[in-house]
Amino acid sequence: MKRYCIIFSYDGSNFAGYQVQPELRTVQGELEKAVMYINNQNPTTVQASGRTDKGVHALRQVAHFDLSVDITESKLKRALNSNLPDDIHVIEAKEVDSTFHARYMVSTKEYVYKMNLGEYNPVERNYVYQCCHTLDIDKMKRAITYFKGIHDFRAFVSENSEKENCVRKISKVSIKQSKIDPNCYEFYFNGTGFLKYQVRNMVGLLIKIGEGKLLPESVIDILNSCDRTKAGKTAPAEGLYLVSVNYKKQNK
Amino acid sequence: MKRYCIIFSYDGSNFAGYQVQPELRTVQGELEKAVMYINNQNPTTVQASGRTDKGVHALRQVAHFDLSVDITESKLKRALNSNLPDDIHVIEAKEVDSTFHARYMVSTKEYVYKMNLGEYNPVERNYVYQCCHTLDIDKMKRAITYFKGIHDFRAFVSENSEKENCVRKISKVSIKQSKIDPNCYEFYFNGTGFLKYQVRNMVGLLIKIGEGKLLPESVIDILNSCDRTKAGKTAPAEGLYLVSVNYKKQNK
Repeated sequence: MKRYCIIFSYDGSNFAGYQVQPELRTVQGELEKAVMYINNQNPTTVQASGRTDKGVHALRQVAHFDLSVDITESKLKRALNSNLPDDIHVIEAKEVDSTFHARYMVSTKEYVYKMNLGEYNPVERNYVYQCCHTLDIDKMKRAITYFKGIHDFRAFVSENSEKENCVRKISKVSIKQSKIDPNCYEFYFNGTGFLKYQVRNMVGLLIKIGEGKLLPESVIDILNSCDRTKAGKTAPAEGLYLVSVNYKKQNK
Repeated sequence: MKRYCIIFSYDGSNFAGYQVQPELRTVQGELEKAVMYINNQNPTTVQASGRTDKGVHALRQVAHFDLSVDITESKLKRALNSNLPDDIHVIEAKEVDSTFHARYMVSTKEYVYKMNLGEYNPVERNYVYQCCHTLDIDKMKRAITYFKGIHDFRAFVSENSEKENCVRKISKVSIKQSKIDPNCYEFYFNGTGFLKYQVRNMVGLLIKIGEGKLLPESVIDILNSCDRTKAGKTAPAEGLYLVSVNYKKQNK
């Protein structure tokens, strides 16, 4: 039995999210079909660093699984890609120590949220949120910095989520103007982990601030309130990408 | 009766091309449904600058049509967009002289072909051709310049096309590296008009040259041969975009 780690990308548009769900097309479901085929038809769990929701994309997601067959890293990559649908792609496959765990050993994750403030662009409609109206980016740049640090993010968690521990650390945030389209902006969040809908809810609040409906400083009050009803709408899934997952050096 | 000109964009992925075809979903078909609705249910032809093929995108396509109802330009834009599916978008609607013709008065058109030579990217699979192997860009840069000028492009026309006049003028060509992904390249062609599959066949030949299978100078011989079998494969539709259509100043 050998453990393998894969780095992979996917287009979330036609998936009901990462996690296996009966009757639905999921990223995990497609990966497990491909891995089972390679693993002598043995059902094999593909454990990712975390779930992504319906419509959310990933540029470098990470997962691990165990194989009872002997296969080189490059053959595994090729075999997976030839058995995967065209909206999932394995970038790298490597053998790892049997103690490696794609979920429990994460040190940081990075997400980016892409938004177009200009004319609606049909070509990007599933990959960049078509906001299509002016926002005060300077106010949003001030607001986003208040997310930095260790906070209880309860006010930014899905209303339906269980009453889990919502304390997380965000170490880096930034807003960058796209190099090819000055009307497009990218919102980066780097942290120890993110709760369900957290990034989309933080972006939803930033939009409200960019629209002048709230002050940048309201981020502080809303964080302190721990009240989900205060932060406004959840930004649509199509603008969100899991950019990368980082592990402590010794583990990968 | 007033004539209107629209500038519009579309995602070609889910269309059987621009031109109306029975039983198939086409850009023209969707536009004519929306225009008919606005034009008191009168069937109305939407005449574009030219057709694009199945899977080909447009950033600023141009078309004209005549309306018997009175409507301001901004209302027309809004009414069209609210009646169009989300893969077509009207950027601009303006009243034009009744002599304006979107097809016959074209002075130049620009196309771009986008290609990724790096790792397969599922998020871009319908918008950038996933070539995914190294090409000699310097050779391709030399080769593309041979397309400039007035030539008989018969060797680059669909094998099934009628024996029409294939002389066209290409005034500008360039190859640009993407500003966000150094493995992605954009091939620009600007000319008086392009024949069916011409751009994709020119790009197909450039790929063959980039692979070292032909010399850059072979473009000259193949142009002179007027023989379609010499130029190689047609590059896939998903990388191609109609960028813009230009008219002589007095007409628009």
